[in-house]
Amino acid sequence: MKADIIISHAFVLSMEGPGVGMIEDGAVAIKGNKIAAVGTTREVMAKFSADECINAKNKLVMPGLIDAHIHTGLAIVRGVAQDMMNWMQEGLWPFTKFVSPADSLAGSMVNIIEGIKAGTTTFCDYDANMNDIVTNYARIGARARVAELINEIPDNIGDIPVGELYPFYSSIGERKLHNNIRLLNMWHEAENGRITCMFGPHGPDMMRLELLLEIKALAEKYDTKLHMHVAQGDREIMQMEKRYGKRSIPFLEEIGYLSNRLLAVHLTEATKEETALVAKHGASMINCAGSIGIIDGIVPPLLEFLEANGTAALGSDQAPGNNCNNMFNEMKFVSILNKVKTRNPATFTATKALRLATIESARAIGLEHEIGSLAAGKKADLLIMNLEVPSMAPIITSPIRNIVPNLVYSANGSEIESVMIDGKFIMANRNITTVDEKQAIKEMQKSAESISEKAKVELQHSKSPLLAMMRNGDL
Amino acid sequence: MKADIIISHAFVLSMEGPGVGMIEDGAVAIKGNKIAAVGTTREVMAKFSADECINAKNKLVMPGLIDAHIHTGLAIVRGVAQDMMNWMQEGLWPFTKFVSPADSLAGSMVNIIEGIKAGTTTFCDYDANMNDIVTNYARIGARARVAELINEIPDNIGDIPVGELYPFYSSIGERKLHNNIRLLNMWHEAENGRITCMFGPHGPDMMRLELLLEIKALAEKYDTKLHMHVAQGDREIMQMEKRYGKRSIPFLEEIGYLSNRLLAVHLTEATKEETALVAKHGASMINCAGSIGIIDGIVPPLLEFLEANGTAALGSDQAPGNNCNNMFNEMKFVSILNKVKTRNPATFTATKALRLATIESARAIGLEHEIGSLAAGKKADLLIMNLEVPSMAPIITSPIRNIVPNLVYSANGSEIESVMIDGKFIMANRNITTVDEKQAIKEMQKSAESISEKAKVELQHSKSPLLAMMRNGDL
Repeated sequence: MKADIIISHAFVLSMEGPGVGMIEDGAVAIKGNKIAAVGTTREVMAKFSADECINAKNKLVMPGLIDAHIHTGLAIVRGVAQDMMNWMQEGLWPFTKFVSPADSLAGSMVNIIEGIKAGTTTFCDYDANMNDIVTNYARIGARARVAELINEIPDNIGDIPVGELYPFYSSIGERKLHNNIRLLNMWHEAENGRITCMFGPHGPDMMRLELLLEIKALAEKYDTKLHMHVAQGDREIMQMEKRYGKRSIPFLEEIGYLSNRLLAVHLTEATKEETALVAKHGASMINCAGSIGIIDGIVPPLLEFLEANGTAALGSDQAPGNNCNNMFNEMKFVSILNKVKTRNPATFTATKALRLATIESARAIGLEHEIGSLAAGKKADLLIMNLEVPSMAPIITSPIRNIVPNLVYSANGSEIESVMIDGKFIMANRNITTVDEKQAIKEMQKSAESISEKAKVELQHSKSPLLAMMRNGDL
Repeated sequence: MKADIIISHAFVLSMEGPGVGMIEDGAVAIKGNKIAAVGTTREVMAKFSADECINAKNKLVMPGLIDAHIHTGLAIVRGVAQDMMNWMQEGLWPFTKFVSPADSLAGSMVNIIEGIKAGTTTFCDYDANMNDIVTNYARIGARARVAELINEIPDNIGDIPVGELYPFYSSIGERKLHNNIRLLNMWHEAENGRITCMFGPHGPDMMRLELLLEIKALAEKYDTKLHMHVAQGDREIMQMEKRYGKRSIPFLEEIGYLSNRLLAVHLTEATKEETALVAKHGASMINCAGSIGIIDGIVPPLLEFLEANGTAALGSDQAPGNNCNNMFNEMKFVSILNKVKTRNPATFTATKALRLATIESARAIGLEHEIGSLAAGKKADLLIMNLEVPSMAPIITSPIRNIVPNLVYSANGSEIESVMIDGKFIMANRNITTVDEKQAIKEMQKSAESISEKAKVELQHSKSPLLAMMRNGDL
């Protein structure tokens, strides 16, 4: 049979089966935007021929990584808020209040390039302004599963004193909900199916009960998922207790939100029982190890969630407060932070981390029929990584293989040579093929300079400890 | 005045003064192997001219990073032991027992290349076989501060059941001490002063008291430092209590080991009081965040050490059990792990992490007169990093600068374009200029294959859980 591309003689990490599905001297045949076959080079070459044959000896071929929670619209202010308490109000807000939709769009494109260059092929992007941001994914050719942030709070929420109940404005909620519906109507299954949409309620504390229920009904009507922050901080729990006399998770259970439609992001403040409750109802957990480590100094209850048989995934969250969007960073951090949390080096293996960024992530976001592993019929989203580089050397295959531990604990993504999404090389020899990377960085820089000019006066009035750091010569 | 090279129009992170010593539109003039001047471009250009002028607009120029504790001789078995208890005996030993000096040397070279490509310019390498390994540093042109591991235990220590006292053999100790003395006589201040030597007692539990005292007297005679594991694991504490009825640190205080000659590595098992005692006596602490996280699931008492006014540094330790040797990895991990340990995002700043990999590290290893910051008269060890890359974009300079947080939390080292050591570009445009990187990887691979062939039978008899992982398809 005729395929378009055959990649052969590789270490193929298929991520099929319960482990990593390693095939030594393996091959992948690609036809159109799909995988036609995966097997040993001998098996695949016996059945398929192709005009483009890539000899990937001493290279690794693996599924593209999935970033199950990212806010690319915030990349424009990377590095302005960390090493501090009240990160959002005192660090981010003095900048984000001046971020225009165009600024956000410019930063998002560079953030997506950053992700692709580190092997991310699917982005669960979750942001206000998603009707604009989604065009970046269309342009660059990445897979995206997107949602508009829906809430009923005013944009200047950062000005409300910590501890006060948020005011709700139904006009804001209606506008944002409308945006999310528009996103679904215009983009769901667009671009050859590369782009799909979810609903994005911001958090249980961010809107009236009525709106939460309306969104849930819409997710059922459109048969899609709900991407939502749940128990993401003591701030949220305080709002919920003050408003409803209940913590977030029991409240969500009561209103029927805990189901397999829900991607519950963070669970930072969830108790062991609450965590198990989320898993029991079939909702998935998105764990952002790097960002919650930097912002809160907390390791979320992922182990408890997995023990309760929950399906989980990793996410890189936002650039201001992580500060990278690189799934290699997330894989290494989730493993080591959980080893340290349990004081047990065997707690969290490299294999587990890799699964949470590929096949289990695909399940968690509801795309396991399309992505997350290399198998005939799935979409052709894959990475080719050079193993003959210092961080991956040497390659040992017997009596044990060292590739997966080194992939998770040593690689940082810069070892990836090529990234294929939907059957097309979006990165080849580390060059993005579909957009001009340098130009994108220039545009982002221009936006950032305009924001920082506006933030000058604002920040002087904030309590950001970064101002003192700046005065002390620490920055 | 005439310099050899002027790098201008850069963001210069001099690391002089109490913070990071940032100079915007800064320049560095280099003459021979030394820095002739550091200042604004205007200041430097007014005084110096040079044949080679590098315009580093939108680039960062900073001191080379210092890896204060690394065992490059172990890189040959990268990735064979992690995600397990008893890492050394059950994971490493079935492989390391077959590692020849030539294998170790081959792996070391690739490991050094890995470090340089991630910005490490000074390596405190600590290994058996250092008389060989040191030749790699001479060849590649890196700065090294090396020590031979001295102990009195047989090579097959991995075969001794966990919990039994180690047997000591004075003939082994004499041979290893002799090797360390030979190293000092042959290599101290060699290669234009790039290579300096220390003494390397393996640990307080690894030899008789007499030998410990003899080494200490030699360090005084040669006026150099002692690089030693201290309180590195419960295994060590158990040996000390069983042999002397004392824990490591009180024992070392009693025998006069706690002084400013000592680099105390790890302190994993040190109590708060013991940690303060080490600091009080002026010994430095080397903290290996990544490796101790992976191997032990522990965050060493670095914060307590710093609170007691100790001088500390970061190290990457060994490739099998970290699994990378990249100081960007160490900077990010030391910060986040300590944030999580204290549940406080403000605990450990990016600035602090950067200082512990540069100027404070130079102090900790006793080379602050030569390296660790960019200042006239110091050795020309520096990095040029491109800031117009996705992980460092955008560059914000006002009202606060975001470069240092993004350097520590977002960069991974692959953004570095050039590495200068001792006035010479050892890496230019990401190519190593002094040795053949591809050939080095080929030689390492050949050695690793021969070791893994020999380890086949051995590992079957070990208790390594990686064997079961291999059978289950997890590797």
